[in-house]
Amino acid sequence: MQINSHKFIGKHILGELYGIPYDIINDLDYMKTLLIKGTEEANATICETIAKRFDPQGLTVLILLSESHVSVHTYPENNSVFFDIFTCGIECDPDKFVKKIIEELKPAKEKILSVKRGNEDESK
Amino acid sequence: MQINSHKFIGKHILGELYGIPYDIINDLDYMKTLLIKGTEEANATICETIAKRFDPQGLTVLILLSESHVSVHTYPENNSVFFDIFTCGIECDPDKFVKKIIEELKPAKEKILSVKRGNEDESK
Repeated sequence: MQINSHKFIGKHILGELYGIPYDIINDLDYMKTLLIKGTEEANATICETIAKRFDPQGLTVLILLSESHVSVHTYPENNSVFFDIFTCGIECDPDKFVKKIIEELKPAKEKILSVKRGNEDESK
Repeated sequence: MQINSHKFIGKHILGELYGIPYDIINDLDYMKTLLIKGTEEANATICETIAKRFDPQGLTVLILLSESHVSVHTYPENNSVFFDIFTCGIECDPDKFVKKIIEELKPAKEKILSVKRGNEDESK
């Protein structure tokens, strides 16, 4: 029997957010808390999180999920963020992660690309 | 001055690989070594790596790069792999990562999607 959370089918969402104040997206604690909230909204399960502050600014946070992963890269000097969330199976809703992130960060503009991944027929 | 490795423009490649033997993609040490080799080929710099073995099979490896990230999720029961590599700036070539992974894993079939990310005009 296949585990639903680790299934070869899923949805991968790539996002670009523009026009967010420097201080917000250079605050690692704030960003980690926000990503955890977003992951919970998506009904995904966090296994482990790693993060790095770049010099002179900018953050990367990677979250290993039972259902795949989340990445966030911030560019405070451009007031901009790249993120992606990939969830396998049908129990998570990565769109809810995206909704939460956008609600909280309030970008002036966003660009979202959603990609369906996997093909159960081809992998049998 | 902006650091080239942390720049708000980049290339994100999403890949699906089919038809790879179970044992190869359920071997965490082998997969980590392969991903490190692929990252080196792409001229990217590894900051930190995390990984998880799933029960009864399957692996996830996430690599935090100076230039963004790599993720790999394996599904030995489907002989299949999902990966993505995102590199910012112009000093890395994520296509070389993809070439290396395909050369080594020798999938029967692959599906590769390359997405240009970021817009320097919009983020100014």
